[in-house]
Amino acid sequence: MSRRELIHSARRGRFRSGKPGCASRVRRSACVVGHHGGMAGVLLDLDGVVYVGDAAVPGAAEAITWLSREGVASLYVTNTTSRPRSAIVEQLTRMGIPASPSQILSPAVAAVAWLRHERIERPALFVPDATASEFAGLDQLPASAEEGAGAVVVGDLGPAWDFATLNRAFRLLMSDPEAPLIALGMTRYWRADDGFRLDVGGFVRALEYATGRTAVVLGKPDPAFYGTAVEALQLRPSQVVMVGDDIRTDVEGAQRAGLTGVLVRTGKFSPSDLTGDVSPDAVLDSIADLPQWWAER
Amino acid sequence: MSRRELIHSARRGRFRSGKPGCASRVRRSACVVGHHGGMAGVLLDLDGVVYVGDAAVPGAAEAITWLSREGVASLYVTNTTSRPRSAIVEQLTRMGIPASPSQILSPAVAAVAWLRHERIERPALFVPDATASEFAGLDQLPASAEEGAGAVVVGDLGPAWDFATLNRAFRLLMSDPEAPLIALGMTRYWRADDGFRLDVGGFVRALEYATGRTAVVLGKPDPAFYGTAVEALQLRPSQVVMVGDDIRTDVEGAQRAGLTGVLVRTGKFSPSDLTGDVSPDAVLDSIADLPQWWAER
Repeated sequence: MSRRELIHSARRGRFRSGKPGCASRVRRSACVVGHHGGMAGVLLDLDGVVYVGDAAVPGAAEAITWLSREGVASLYVTNTTSRPRSAIVEQLTRMGIPASPSQILSPAVAAVAWLRHERIERPALFVPDATASEFAGLDQLPASAEEGAGAVVVGDLGPAWDFATLNRAFRLLMSDPEAPLIALGMTRYWRADDGFRLDVGGFVRALEYATGRTAVVLGKPDPAFYGTAVEALQLRPSQVVMVGDDIRTDVEGAQRAGLTGVLVRTGKFSPSDLTGDVSPDAVLDSIADLPQWWAER
Repeated sequence: MSRRELIHSARRGRFRSGKPGCASRVRRSACVVGHHGGMAGVLLDLDGVVYVGDAAVPGAAEAITWLSREGVASLYVTNTTSRPRSAIVEQLTRMGIPASPSQILSPAVAAVAWLRHERIERPALFVPDATASEFAGLDQLPASAEEGAGAVVVGDLGPAWDFATLNRAFRLLMSDPEAPLIALGMTRYWRADDGFRLDVGGFVRALEYATGRTAVVLGKPDPAFYGTAVEALQLRPSQVVMVGDDIRTDVEGAQRAGLTGVLVRTGKFSPSDLTGDVSPDAVLDSIADLPQWWAER
């Protein structure tokens, strides 16, 4: 999906923005200024906000229905690189939250749009098979090649990382100084059933250090990723609220991109998040409290 | 070997410092000032300077003999973490360069001294088996434990790195916020027979990023490592010349620590090294030219 298609999809999405009664040709910002402190759109993190693991956060479906009914423009923004949007849509639907792939912005979706925009062909993918399906429309480098990649795309490969695999990504970058290193987010780690697990970020840092290059980060907390999301809503950053459970990736990242950052006390939230150097614009017990907060602003 | 033992060994080493005729109680610096621009000691990188792979650099043995005869204090400084000092001594001896382990400062040797100095017990070792032998005097964490490490020591594990191994290092660090991450150098990569291979640096960066901690780097180009080497020679940084083939690790690292940095055109030298932002204090065709350069200073 190109960036243009993404914008188009968001415009047609279930979460239409603008108050009922706004003329469709009126600039959305002009239509909503004065409501909710000028807020017109919301970005929702998924895991830890809408659901935790396989379970919906109580009240999530009702809150999302309320936002939709109020005409708040909305987009799900997730750093998940372990599964495609279709799997996320299935999960949301099971939880009583109708959704379509076009309402989800993930690093893989942003990467495909970025590669198309830059006219880069034959990327080498270091992503789980499920995520690779997002790249199906692009010609891909064979899995054993050590040169000839138009770009090196790195996601959360998890246990599939071994020395040979990481070294292959390294050699591809060394063989072509023009090939960009694309990071599908920079998540540090996640908590699996058996304990902490390294996510994509460390492996990107390893390749950055060894090659002396800087990755193009497509995912939270990169400002460009938030910019893509805001652009998809056709709003200005100051009009958009980001709701997340990660004080750094969600709240600080959004604030740095000029958005309002709201922290929820679900998912990976820890009380120590509130004693650091990041001050959320609001802290809610969960997404269930979002409608009341929104209405009172 | 403790730092004290290391200093003692260097003092007794084949490369005695001070000019013949200097009273042993006279401060070495006072004895040599005025000779060789105040230079009294030399640090020699090994791979790329004294030998390249299995072959001695022509003239290396003669140059080292000359330095010894002139009473120049000397120490080999190497970032090798793939083999112990005993193996290096064997190689040097085969090349006609008599040496003893006490004349070699490697990251593993510095790490053992550091751990002893900090009274840290039970380090978890992520180093090749051969390098692990340098740590034989310390109590070590069992290879499967995921907590209880006094420190996490990371070297060039090469193909033995896999996700589970790197993740175990990560979990050990996460389970104890006090356990330091020790990096045996920060070498980016090396050139194996079949192409480039990632070295230790990237894996350290991965762990630093995921844990949010900063590694204690024991190896070139860290200033503390050069400081240990200079201390072992009982000289001041301004009295010591570092000779290496790596414009960053050897030349820039030494200059940052206050030493004189000399680049040789052997090993990994590339003409582009001379067009960057680092200016070597001298550039020699090889170590064979070191005696003439030294004598003419």
